[in-house]
Amino acid sequence: MKLQVTQENLNRALNAVARVASSRGTLPILANVALKTSQNRLSVAATNLDVAITCFIGAKISQEGATTVPARLTQDFIASLPSGVIDLKLDGTKLNIKTDQYESTINSVSADDFPVMPKVSGSKTFELPVDKLKGAFGQVVGAAGSDETRPVLTGIYLAGGDKLVIAATDSYRLAEKTLAEKIKLTPIIIPSSAVSELLRVLPDAGKITVNYSDQQISFSTDFIELTARLIDGNYPPYQNLIPTKFTTKAIVARADLLNITKVSSLFARESAGSITINVDDEAGNISVHSIASQLGENTASATAEATGSGSITLNSRYLLDALGAMSDAKDIFFGFNGKLEAVVVRNNDASDFTYVIMPLKS
Amino acid sequence: MKLQVTQENLNRALNAVARVASSRGTLPILANVALKTSQNRLSVAATNLDVAITCFIGAKISQEGATTVPARLTQDFIASLPSGVIDLKLDGTKLNIKTDQYESTINSVSADDFPVMPKVSGSKTFELPVDKLKGAFGQVVGAAGSDETRPVLTGIYLAGGDKLVIAATDSYRLAEKTLAEKIKLTPIIIPSSAVSELLRVLPDAGKITVNYSDQQISFSTDFIELTARLIDGNYPPYQNLIPTKFTTKAIVARADLLNITKVSSLFARESAGSITINVDDEAGNISVHSIASQLGENTASATAEATGSGSITLNSRYLLDALGAMSDAKDIFFGFNGKLEAVVVRNNDASDFTYVIMPLKS
Repeated sequence: MKLQVTQENLNRALNAVARVASSRGTLPILANVALKTSQNRLSVAATNLDVAITCFIGAKISQEGATTVPARLTQDFIASLPSGVIDLKLDGTKLNIKTDQYESTINSVSADDFPVMPKVSGSKTFELPVDKLKGAFGQVVGAAGSDETRPVLTGIYLAGGDKLVIAATDSYRLAEKTLAEKIKLTPIIIPSSAVSELLRVLPDAGKITVNYSDQQISFSTDFIELTARLIDGNYPPYQNLIPTKFTTKAIVARADLLNITKVSSLFARESAGSITINVDDEAGNISVHSIASQLGENTASATAEATGSGSITLNSRYLLDALGAMSDAKDIFFGFNGKLEAVVVRNNDASDFTYVIMPLKS
Repeated sequence: MKLQVTQENLNRALNAVARVASSRGTLPILANVALKTSQNRLSVAATNLDVAITCFIGAKISQEGATTVPARLTQDFIASLPSGVIDLKLDGTKLNIKTDQYESTINSVSADDFPVMPKVSGSKTFELPVDKLKGAFGQVVGAAGSDETRPVLTGIYLAGGDKLVIAATDSYRLAEKTLAEKIKLTPIIIPSSAVSELLRVLPDAGKITVNYSDQQISFSTDFIELTARLIDGNYPPYQNLIPTKFTTKAIVARADLLNITKVSSLFARESAGSITINVDDEAGNISVHSIASQLGENTASATAEATGSGSITLNSRYLLDALGAMSDAKDIFFGFNGKLEAVVVRNNDASDFTYVIMPLKS
């Protein structure tokens, strides 16, 4: 293997894939990145057997070949090189990396031992604008669970139809986004870890092609391809959990609700984030109250367009996550019924994203 | 106690002092900051018994008083408030903090229980431009030791005379700065932790007044006062360690030496940072070589004005620290004698700062 690449491109590719490589685990070679030439491109790939990412960059190939090198060292090393042309040459088991000022050899391991990237069988596929999919995943991924004993909830739910539905829940809160894309897709569940990686590596524009089977899914752009194993199981029928009528409603500027929630959350550290939100239609405001038994208490309020009065106790972190996922919203709709029923948080000027928070007992 | 302050000023003061307050340790009140009015100023103070910091900010006092409140909560809370006027009112044991939008009460502890800031006895004093002292401390503080069994080396050495000498060493490397200030000062040793705090809180301009006794030292500006307990003991006569003649010398652009050292240090992680530097006066260059037994090896070189040839092995971190402390240098002087004698690193265009590195056996 003998080729030339630019430091900029190789650095970009390594930053995209190296994070997936891990020295933990039983298979040492998973701590390596695989380099492989093909025509005028170099593919840079890493996998943890659940997720695989491959990057393609332009290269001047003088001799085709493939090998694998330690991910972290190679990434840090290439990152520290000045921009410009880099010569790569495989010499036995040693990869020679050369610029005018630097020369180093990194010990490699044969690419034959590198686990083959799972290929998505079957031809079910659809295409989307990258920014739409990226935006949607970004809004819901934080709501996914991390409890491995309930694997289904550690995934992101995707279902087609007249609209594309993307949802995540850890059973304490739920985020659902609908995209106005008519797509034929029997529901699947994607590991949220794979979605997080995807969000990290996707460009901001262009088209993305999605291929999926019953076991796997892959996302492809010109520059990058991510393949993930799907989560097996039935996603809970969460739709029934989303209330549609509310005895108490408030419409409040997002900036105000964010500020008063942030401040109150400081006093809620001891009480696992517990804050009590009060809507008062006579005073025309929404207020947040929190108590830190040892330290003190806090009340913060903001003017709101309120209908009905009432109060509900919830985890401030979930509300902050919800508001964070609606960073583009000017006004927030905040509605609930009894003390024990779910709270709904929405962008008051859009209905394509819904955040549901289960209350805490108070 | 009843007063008004601006969020900007109180936030600035809390950020300066709160870090010193610590919930670790036996005395719970040390996790608090002390608030005390005096004429038209509010003093905000914290201490860990070794270091004490007090900030003074303007305030509109309607009722004099003093109290102490939890440092972290108060700091985070004030930081999260919008800029503008804040009303503070002590109501029994509760401190009321009020803005138009926020109202909170923080439980306070009587200021009587707060350990009194140590006052520097005696009248030994001198004055310096803040930027000079700050720059000098910043250049040497990183070289101080952390081994509590050798307390003297955990401090910064300060000695007067025709010049003010400021030095630090952990016995593996040494940094010495001289300031062209004629100051009468019998040598003292300041805890490097206190100096680090000082660097964090000092403004960039103005005058600083230093008062010291045999036990204590204090640094004062209009805005802030830091008092520290001095370290008792005799500082090692390090001057003898600094070679004045060199069999091998290289003058190299700082940027080049920094780059090749950084890159080589990546390969030196396994070998405790060990890199070998080679000066070659025929080739007219300086090169850095490092080996990561499992992973590979690296050689990087830069053109240098070399006198004599030779090589020496040292810890790359120390060399990176040295170059970091000379960020204003264009060219670096790098000189050494035998494989076992100390290396000297200097700004080639200035003699007021010297960094000495003991070599590693190779």
